[in-house]
Amino acid sequence: MSVITLLTDFGHRDAFVGTMKGVILGISPEARIVDLSHEITPQRIEEGAFVLRTAYAYFPEGTVHVAVVDPGVGGTRRALVVETHGYRFVGPDNGLFAHVYAKETVLRVVSVTESRFMLPEISNTFHGRDVFAPVAAHLALGVPVSDFGPEIDDYVTGTVTEPVVHEGGITGRVLHIDRYGNIITDIGDSLFLEKTRDKRFRIRLADLALDRVSASYDEADAGASLAILDSAGLLEIAVNGGNAAETLGVSTGDRVDVEVE
Amino acid sequence: MSVITLLTDFGHRDAFVGTMKGVILGISPEARIVDLSHEITPQRIEEGAFVLRTAYAYFPEGTVHVAVVDPGVGGTRRALVVETHGYRFVGPDNGLFAHVYAKETVLRVVSVTESRFMLPEISNTFHGRDVFAPVAAHLALGVPVSDFGPEIDDYVTGTVTEPVVHEGGITGRVLHIDRYGNIITDIGDSLFLEKTRDKRFRIRLADLALDRVSASYDEADAGASLAILDSAGLLEIAVNGGNAAETLGVSTGDRVDVEVE
Amino acid sequence: MSVITLLTDFGHRDAFVGTMKGVILGISPEARIVDLSHEITPQRIEEGAFVLRTAYAYFPEGTVHVAVVDPGVGGTRRALVVETHGYRFVGPDNGLFAHVYAKETVLRVVSVTESRFMLPEISNTFHGRDVFAPVAAHLALGVPVSDFGPEIDDYVTGTVTEPVVHEGGITGRVLHIDRYGNIITDIGDSLFLEKTRDKRFRIRLADLALDRVSASYDEADAGASLAILDSAGLLEIAVNGGNAAETLGVSTGDRVDVEVE
Repeated sequence: MSVITLLTDFGHRDAFVGTMKGVILGISPEARIVDLSHEITPQRIEEGAFVLRTAYAYFPEGTVHVAVVDPGVGGTRRALVVETHGYRFVGPDNGLFAHVYAKETVLRVVSVTESRFMLPEISNTFHGRDVFAPVAAHLALGVPVSDFGPEIDDYVTGTVTEPVVHEGGITGRVLHIDRYGNIITDIGDSLFLEKTRDKRFRIRLADLALDRVSASYDEADAGASLAILDSAGLLEIAVNGGNAAETLGVSTGDRVDVEVE
Repeated sequence: MSVITLLTDFGHRDAFVGTMKGVILGISPEARIVDLSHEITPQRIEEGAFVLRTAYAYFPEGTVHVAVVDPGVGGTRRALVVETHGYRFVGPDNGLFAHVYAKETVLRVVSVTESRFMLPEISNTFHGRDVFAPVAAHLALGVPVSDFGPEIDDYVTGTVTEPVVHEGGITGRVLHIDRYGNIITDIGDSLFLEKTRDKRFRIRLADLALDRVSASYDEADAGASLAILDSAGLLEIAVNGGNAAETLGVSTGDRVDVEVE
Repeated sequence: MSVITLLTDFGHRDAFVGTMKGVILGISPEARIVDLSHEITPQRIEEGAFVLRTAYAYFPEGTVHVAVVDPGVGGTRRALVVETHGYRFVGPDNGLFAHVYAKETVLRVVSVTESRFMLPEISNTFHGRDVFAPVAAHLALGVPVSDFGPEIDDYVTGTVTEPVVHEGGITGRVLHIDRYGNIITDIGDSLFLEKTRDKRFRIRLADLALDRVSASYDEADAGASLAILDSAGLLEIAVNGGNAAETLGVSTGDRVDVEVE
């Protein structure tokens, strides 16, 4: 029994995702397939990379994670299998695995060239179905990573923004806005705690300034802003019972400062 | 083989739901996981409670139903396991199980305190992943309800609006607007049939007045309004081939009258 | 182990789809259930028929495909099981299987009348739950198609638009706009290649004229329009990195011309 997860920008209106599952079950009938997200903004590789980061490590060892946000489909970009200690990742070579490369020990990256692990006909526009799904299904069946093609080391590492630590504190960026309008920054909880320990600090974002971190959303009054260390291990700005990104007019990429006295 | 259902307001863009499934499969690899809905309006507990009501009884006996609409996450609200004759329900103690309490014989309600059934680290913002998913997975494995913590009887029963029966008929409320714009009221079919049997009646909602109930949507002309007894056992107002809520300008909570002569 | 797919216009906010799965698992606990789409535009049978067409053939032989876009629910329209060489299709008799009839050899079409394969109570508004889900589950268990009711031959074949071939080339229609805004026409790749072989041609749609077909989206400059033969075997108009339907102001049903010199 092997778990295969799927993360794409395919949406839910077309049957792209269902079709991938049909291909997988035709090859690996016992695979357990789990959706991570299919509502990544079309062609936004960084968003897909971030959402993958929040989820992959919560799966059982041996899980195959397939990610397809693939504006270069049908062109010259390579198809990859990335092997780490616990997982295999399958997807296009375009930086979608940036956070995996940054957080995991990469054992091997293979460029998928063996067509016997793909569908007999490869379309120009849907490698999720024709390449990535059958490759994942074969991995789930136990085909070794090295069978899929040659090992490479010049894969696209992609972008992982890191906050800048300076004398006055930390300067970071908004990494993601979630479903509730919570604002996820790229400032990690351990960095934040280390730099603010026993010190007065001020978190600044748009017009907002906060001088404490809450232990739960409802520590703030209803409708009030708060800072919290979130479930992805990152500093988050939220509004209790509201939508912080809308209230503050904040979007991905905006600057966040932690000023330390 | 145990079935676990998931109902949340987590949406489909982030990987919150997928992450819960990863946690479940890590503990209970054979569990069958079914999504009820993840598009409950953020933090609208009553909406989640209603959608759960329409679905839970159609699952095999032994199913574990997990529901997470949880504005109080990380605060003082308790985590519950509710046991009924056929099912176990897992979620926050905030009224999300209001219809379950109203319709089922509750055998036991337990406040989940045993941390050995949770993830080792509990975040402040995502108990779906850290508490409710692992608790459900352990239930699916056969851990008895009483092992999760002390039995309580002061749980939050929540709100179930009931129509008022009076001399002139029945006064109810709009409980839910579904995907098609169908208007679901809180007037049950047996109450409606009992009060209108062999009598002339008039259903009033906004500017609309209807004096009969249809047996199917297409008994009405295309674009015409109709009343129907729906699949949840409730009086529903619809437009054949159209969106009744938009056409009539009706929202949840609006008043509906059944006037009986 | 049998696969059952579900395609509906039920959306993701209500628990309609989850409820169908509960019914299926109660009858056929080992069935593997896969979602094709639940975001078909409400009551748009042609859209459902097209999305089903793109997906069904990628599933293992023996798969049961359930499709429910059913404005006539509760009325006089029949419920069908359609048997082809590889698959069984379950759904309302309203043209939803138009592309299946056009592409497959139909072995048998049965009007479902045997109530022992339905839920004990049949609502007026939700045959997905009360009829189609239990019928599919019984098919997955191995009940022969002929057991469900009498064979019929006057089923509703529905509409499959076909492009017109004329002296000046091909005139087709826009069949579908996908998630990315890609414009899918009804002009098949083999027809297109046959008519344009060794000839100069011009594809015209709205204000656009294209005289070549690309092998991948990124052969065009970023933001530029292109034609491509897509993963469903159809001529598609796209914008590299953009939304072609919005850019060109095109919708389903619009005319497309391939002018051949």
